[in-house]
Amino acid sequence: MSLIYAGIDLGGTGIKIALGSADGQILQHVTIPTLSQEGPQRILQRMSEAVTQLAKQCDCEISGVGIGVPGLADIKSGVTKFLPNLATQWREVRVADSLRASLGCQVRLLNDVRTASLAELKYGYGKNQPNLTFVFFALGTGVGGGIAIDGKLRLGPLGAAGELGHCTVVPNGRLCGCGNRGCLETVASGPVLVAEAVRLVLSGLAPLLHQLVEGDTGRITTKEMAQAAQEGDTHVADVIVQAATSLGTVAANLVTTLHPDMIVLGGGVAGIGKLVTETVQQVIREQVRMVPTDWLRVEVTQLGQEAGVLGAIALAAADDLF
Amino acid sequence: MSLIYAGIDLGGTGIKIALGSADGQILQHVTIPTLSQEGPQRILQRMSEAVTQLAKQCDCEISGVGIGVPGLADIKSGVTKFLPNLATQWREVRVADSLRASLGCQVRLLNDVRTASLAELKYGYGKNQPNLTFVFFALGTGVGGGIAIDGKLRLGPLGAAGELGHCTVVPNGRLCGCGNRGCLETVASGPVLVAEAVRLVLSGLAPLLHQLVEGDTGRITTKEMAQAAQEGDTHVADVIVQAATSLGTVAANLVTTLHPDMIVLGGGVAGIGKLVTETVQQVIREQVRMVPTDWLRVEVTQLGQEAGVLGAIALAAADDLF
Repeated sequence: MSLIYAGIDLGGTGIKIALGSADGQILQHVTIPTLSQEGPQRILQRMSEAVTQLAKQCDCEISGVGIGVPGLADIKSGVTKFLPNLATQWREVRVADSLRASLGCQVRLLNDVRTASLAELKYGYGKNQPNLTFVFFALGTGVGGGIAIDGKLRLGPLGAAGELGHCTVVPNGRLCGCGNRGCLETVASGPVLVAEAVRLVLSGLAPLLHQLVEGDTGRITTKEMAQAAQEGDTHVADVIVQAATSLGTVAANLVTTLHPDMIVLGGGVAGIGKLVTETVQQVIREQVRMVPTDWLRVEVTQLGQEAGVLGAIALAAADDLF
Repeated sequence: MSLIYAGIDLGGTGIKIALGSADGQILQHVTIPTLSQEGPQRILQRMSEAVTQLAKQCDCEISGVGIGVPGLADIKSGVTKFLPNLATQWREVRVADSLRASLGCQVRLLNDVRTASLAELKYGYGKNQPNLTFVFFALGTGVGGGIAIDGKLRLGPLGAAGELGHCTVVPNGRLCGCGNRGCLETVASGPVLVAEAVRLVLSGLAPLLHQLVEGDTGRITTKEMAQAAQEGDTHVADVIVQAATSLGTVAANLVTTLHPDMIVLGGGVAGIGKLVTETVQQVIREQVRMVPTDWLRVEVTQLGQEAGVLGAIALAAADDLF
């Protein structure tokens, strides 16, 4: 029987935990609330208990644990550096040591978008192309990223390489949460799109979107924006195209730099679909002139909500990452 | 005795040829004029004759030939794609086949900045750090680049990855020779700096530079600009800082993306020295906020004019590039 690993996706509201094998077969899974205000020690204890419980249900031994965290962690020491969306921000929490002590196996930490990139590499577009080179953008509340080169995730000394949301795309632009100005995250995240849509609805420039949310701007998400754009709200479509154009510029620079086989998009903004992927493809065609780019695919990830835990399982099982 | 390789650096005015071993020891070298108007066939014939001549002088057999070309070539087929600075532009010239037939050994082609990056990896900053990750910018008439990740040059399917001069840094900026707008090359190349310096001299804003070139703007190079800036021409210094700031933005995005150990600068603009390296370092510190960047070194290459042929020898000798 193959070895069983635990994959954990630590989110702001929920913690997804799954047991599975290195080939991506999930045996058991559970989601527990994060209750971030309880603080790291209590949360780690509940995580550990949930993994033990799942292992009992499967009647199996856990060979390793992988955890995707929403922020930065030192991959070598398994210590969190900064998880901005969790209460107390988890600065210097010794997650790997703590879980290793309670679970008795190896524990690895990695940024959650990098684990999702690893899932893409092992179980997604890279599944049948083990030497795939791709650039992954996760376009959600924040904009994260991951880079696979010749089938290997680029991590850098801390595991922090691939923070594509913090590439400068508007020189001297808006202040970003990171402290820099004009990061991709300041022009292409979910909140940026929603805020623009709120402006349009309040200005009377998005009648279909107004109707879709019954005048309640608090209900606007990128999903409603996608529908309104599709059905004819041209200003909403333009907001999406503008964001995708900035994304396209960052992607084009990465094509020029790295010549990936693919650009893979995930997260709510990617869920908008063709208007985003086709804009990105067009910007790449316009801005990358040194070589033909017909070979380059821009695709939305086909891995769904499971990407996080799958990537964490791949992290636990990986023998070539560190 | 170790194997001997020929390294060729094909330039717009001269062709440098050297014979040496994989450890970078040069036995013989010669420079012949390019005479680009003679066309590829005649030039390839003279190249071949010069290599044969050098081999005779050394009384040695050539085990392989590497050629750095000023433009794009398909590394797999050894066919040039586009060498913009040579007469007839060398479109689809079967260089490897031609030289293989006359010299009887394996022949490899690569962009000349990528061969210089390879020299940096094998004989420069990477010499004692075989797993070095660095980003190399060659800031001359054009702006070229090369990327080494964990000690391996990133080439991509055509060998065209690393064209860092064609990363967009000014959205909707100046038209670049490549057809895109706002490429790094449009704001940080030698000609850009010289043109700005001409404007300053003609406007009476660069009195020291005016004096240095005795009022003859045709004599201005980045060398005179460096001296004038150093001695107190503040407008000249500002022109250099502006260009280095754009370079710094592209470098910062690559630090965010790849977490290299070093940024290495070559070419005439890099020869300006500290005003460039310190500006780049400062911009990186300002724009990369997700992780500390104290570990990152920004350095000027220590390989001189020999970098081209040395890299071409390394290309010929490489066993892990293709």
